[in-house]
Amino acid sequence: MALILTFLGKSSTARTKIAIAAAMKQAREGKRVLLAGNSEPAMQILLGTTLSNEPQEVAPNLQAVQFHASTLLESSWEEVKKLEAQYLRTPFLKEVYGQELAVLPGMDAALALNAVRQYDESGKYDTIVYDGTGDSTTLRLLGLPESLSWYVRRFRQLFVNSDLGKAISESPLIQPLISTFFNINWTSDNFSQPTNMANNLLDKGKAALADPKRIAAFLVTNDDPVEIASARYLWGSAQLIGLTIGGVILTGAVSNPTLQEEFEPLTITTVNDATEGQWQSMIDTLPDFVAQATLAPRPMEIDTGARQVRLFLPGFDKKQVKLTQYGPEVTIEAGDQRRNILLPPPLSGKPITGAKFQNGYLIISF
Amino acid sequence: MALILTFLGKSSTARTKIAIAAAMKQAREGKRVLLAGNSEPAMQILLGTTLSNEPQEVAPNLQAVQFHASTLLESSWEEVKKLEAQYLRTPFLKEVYGQELAVLPGMDAALALNAVRQYDESGKYDTIVYDGTGDSTTLRLLGLPESLSWYVRRFRQLFVNSDLGKAISESPLIQPLISTFFNINWTSDNFSQPTNMANNLLDKGKAALADPKRIAAFLVTNDDPVEIASARYLWGSAQLIGLTIGGVILTGAVSNPTLQEEFEPLTITTVNDATEGQWQSMIDTLPDFVAQATLAPRPMEIDTGARQVRLFLPGFDKKQVKLTQYGPEVTIEAGDQRRNILLPPPLSGKPITGAKFQNGYLIISF
Repeated sequence: MALILTFLGKSSTARTKIAIAAAMKQAREGKRVLLAGNSEPAMQILLGTTLSNEPQEVAPNLQAVQFHASTLLESSWEEVKKLEAQYLRTPFLKEVYGQELAVLPGMDAALALNAVRQYDESGKYDTIVYDGTGDSTTLRLLGLPESLSWYVRRFRQLFVNSDLGKAISESPLIQPLISTFFNINWTSDNFSQPTNMANNLLDKGKAALADPKRIAAFLVTNDDPVEIASARYLWGSAQLIGLTIGGVILTGAVSNPTLQEEFEPLTITTVNDATEGQWQSMIDTLPDFVAQATLAPRPMEIDTGARQVRLFLPGFDKKQVKLTQYGPEVTIEAGDQRRNILLPPPLSGKPITGAKFQNGYLIISF
Repeated sequence: MALILTFLGKSSTARTKIAIAAAMKQAREGKRVLLAGNSEPAMQILLGTTLSNEPQEVAPNLQAVQFHASTLLESSWEEVKKLEAQYLRTPFLKEVYGQELAVLPGMDAALALNAVRQYDESGKYDTIVYDGTGDSTTLRLLGLPESLSWYVRRFRQLFVNSDLGKAISESPLIQPLISTFFNINWTSDNFSQPTNMANNLLDKGKAALADPKRIAAFLVTNDDPVEIASARYLWGSAQLIGLTIGGVILTGAVSNPTLQEEFEPLTITTVNDATEGQWQSMIDTLPDFVAQATLAPRPMEIDTGARQVRLFLPGFDKKQVKLTQYGPEVTIEAGDQRRNILLPPPLSGKPITGAKFQNGYLIISF
């Protein structure tokens, strides 16, 4: 089980530099580190080397890899074809080659998340630094286990009981496909026993996200008001999907005296730039990521004794947060993120009796 | 039919500023302009106003809108539920509310593309300036009609003839759902007659993308080697999905003497920065977007006489481009984009006899 670190913020080049320096810092501390990026050229130029879809050593203890969605898609396709051959008398997907599959929107994120999960489970790394898009797209990616498991739990019962559900579940391919990808048994029997799902991929993803020693993100900003506002927006949005923001990394000089207030109670660390591949100066100024992430506010706390749910939603004011209770769960919306909260038994199904916004926390009472 | 303009490049703030200035320039020239962005705060701060999911006038002839994926998803969900009620005896989706749906990766892009399409078809605008993520995600979004129509044409025959396809096509909901979203009739009869599909959404999207007077992107870069390399990478990637890159917009001072060579044959326009909401100075330095886009190299030309396909793939060298012919079409891969080329009748099904890379063009002979 590795520590997964990522960076959010508006300046793409600044984020990539900090990801590289963070990976180097961890490697020099003796951790086995994987630095993972997308297929755009920035990381290669900054590292001064060519990267590929296979991890390669770029420094002692430090490997780097580029996620290439087209190639990742090919491997997944081979798995699908194997299943098809196993379960269908007349397989037809075998005529389609992985090498010709086009990448659709969303596949990059899903494939990258799956690749991170596999490297994490390989046991080969102590730290994985993921240099993603650093914006809402990265939040969609890390929020995928939560949002997908909402779809599963919300639709499973409706679907299993429907005519369409019955028609589809009779196809011999659909069940193994879904079981393989999500490690869930697609039968109504299993759906009625949520404990059977405890060990599945989505729950593992959610558990990792809830643990700041497993997954943490840091904000990267400079002194520009647009960058600061964007970082605050990403901070609040990240909290809503359950991602811990460990701290703020500030690049460049500061003239804004209220900066500390804007990110209260996070620690702001000012880092030196890494020019011309001189990383040491930046590495020396980086914070202790795990220590900061452990101290940062937790995105959500459920207090069944006080019959309260407390969500830390910095960067938003009361008017920007929407709270509804249409379905069986409570839905919170802020920014462009939406989270459905599955309440534990003592609060489950209870109507909301009050909600207030206090010091950046949304406090919901039942 | 509006002109759709977008900007690609590594600096998000620079792109948003140029999108705003481009929208203002077009509006001052008398065009009816829609400026569309995502829900992050940058555009609101730079415009000094609050934006929402509904277009609002921010200057004469200029409306601005923020695409809010959660809200767009609600409207689409209402359409799905209407269809379900119409076609299924026992509708089950009606119990799920649009307001609780979580946004999955890829939905942002698909919903934004659909919203742009609807504003385009509304006839209310002469120009739509889309300030997207400006990276590969925007290319996935604009490439969606092409890649989705590849899935349709590649899988339709295989699927219709399969056991699974027969089972699914017997469900009374699937056919109207697919017809509504893609305006395609999901019957084997239709699939055998490609002309029936000529008027569908995907073909309309592809036709728009192929016309530089309808959709064009411009690269935004500064003098930093990482930004320049990223812009070149996005240039080549855009060509592969069929998106015309009209020119290069350079922000800040230049000391790199080879910059012109890097983007040959595009025109590089140096623009002034817009500080503190003073847009006029930036607007005055912007290029004539349509004139530049019309002169820019076309992404692909098929010459049936010479039995050649020519693709303009700048920013890549020969080793970075992969050409395969596994399925019935020719597949080109470069960067992290993959395009399957449907050859016209004289070349269709013919094996490749040669391929060479010349002056940034990949020339394939049959």
